[in-house]
Amino acid sequence: MNFSSKILEEAVNALSALPGVGKKTALRLALHLIQDGNTKSLKIASALDRLASGIKKCKKCNNIADDDVCDICLAPHRNKKLLCVVESVRDVMAIEETNQFSGSYHVLDGVISPLDGIGPDDLSIDMLMKRVKQDNIEEIIMAISPTIEGETTIFYISKLLKDTEVKVSIIARGVSFGGDLEYADELTLGRSIVSRLPYSFQ
Amino acid sequence: MNFSSKILEEAVNALSALPGVGKKTALRLALHLIQDGNTKSLKIASALDRLASGIKKCKKCNNIADDDVCDICLAPHRNKKLLCVVESVRDVMAIEETNQFSGSYHVLDGVISPLDGIGPDDLSIDMLMKRVKQDNIEEIIMAISPTIEGETTIFYISKLLKDTEVKVSIIARGVSFGGDLEYADELTLGRSIVSRLPYSFQ
Repeated sequence: MNFSSKILEEAVNALSALPGVGKKTALRLALHLIQDGNTKSLKIASALDRLASGIKKCKKCNNIADDDVCDICLAPHRNKKLLCVVESVRDVMAIEETNQFSGSYHVLDGVISPLDGIGPDDLSIDMLMKRVKQDNIEEIIMAISPTIEGETTIFYISKLLKDTEVKVSIIARGVSFGGDLEYADELTLGRSIVSRLPYSFQ
Repeated sequence: MNFSSKILEEAVNALSALPGVGKKTALRLALHLIQDGNTKSLKIASALDRLASGIKKCKKCNNIADDDVCDICLAPHRNKKLLCVVESVRDVMAIEETNQFSGSYHVLDGVISPLDGIGPDDLSIDMLMKRVKQDNIEEIIMAISPTIEGETTIFYISKLLKDTEVKVSIIARGVSFGGDLEYADELTLGRSIVSRLPYSFQ
């Protein structure tokens, strides 16, 4: 690209380091910011400055937090003996969005994936095991994606927990609400028939 | 969205002000920046800070520049009597990319579009007219998109230039190189037949 301005070129190079943003998109974003005046640029710049300096990991659950312990771990009304183990911060947010869970979380920061070079030591599994002992956890819900890597991770963690008294459960898998049966994949549909539930009038 | 961190929430809100970036994409970007450590965030923050404070418009051609006059206007080997009138900075970059033009530019900052409330006074047409007189411009090439708004703008400017000695030309329209004739739209194909060129052996 032929830039008439070094400042613009630097901005484009910096923005194109974002995932899914190529040079052309970065140029579009930078020109938009220029056209918009200074407000948006300065707002984003200061927000990212704070993101770089201020963000922390919760010492209890490995979630993203502003302080040493996150708001969810601090909340007095939440069940501290019930842990939901998730892959990422985004999953915490997705589950919180449902308003169906009032326990605590544990963020693994990924799943075991030998092909990507991610082993159990790269995840916060040690931290989880310590927490299980220290906090006398009663139940762990594995809310991990039902992929090969996810299933491996669930298997690995539940094996570590085998000799403890912790109850391990996984989130239900089956056809989606509002989804058409004919479009559900065979594996999901097959499993949802095998693990059928008794119907209850409510 | 349920954020466990105010800092993250602010970053997501700031990033989602970018065009084409919604809340979910902004969250993905912010989490990527957190996972990446501080480097990228700080780089983007400082680049956008500079973008807000340092960017200028060239006083001659209205292009984006680091100083009062842009590098293209300052370049000694470029033809100062030949102007290429374009809609935006991106068009300057696209034409520079072709290496086929060695004159100067004039950036209009848009096209006349009454539906969007953009009239001739919102563009840098006055600036262009002054320049035509001051710099004794000999030829103006209209490199403006062949849309209704673009054609209106070309018509408006060339009418203003009618009583001057400036030669006005428009960039050639026709079928694209490498394009299939059967997929070219009727208007383009029809016009390219009407304005056919004598074939020359070279």
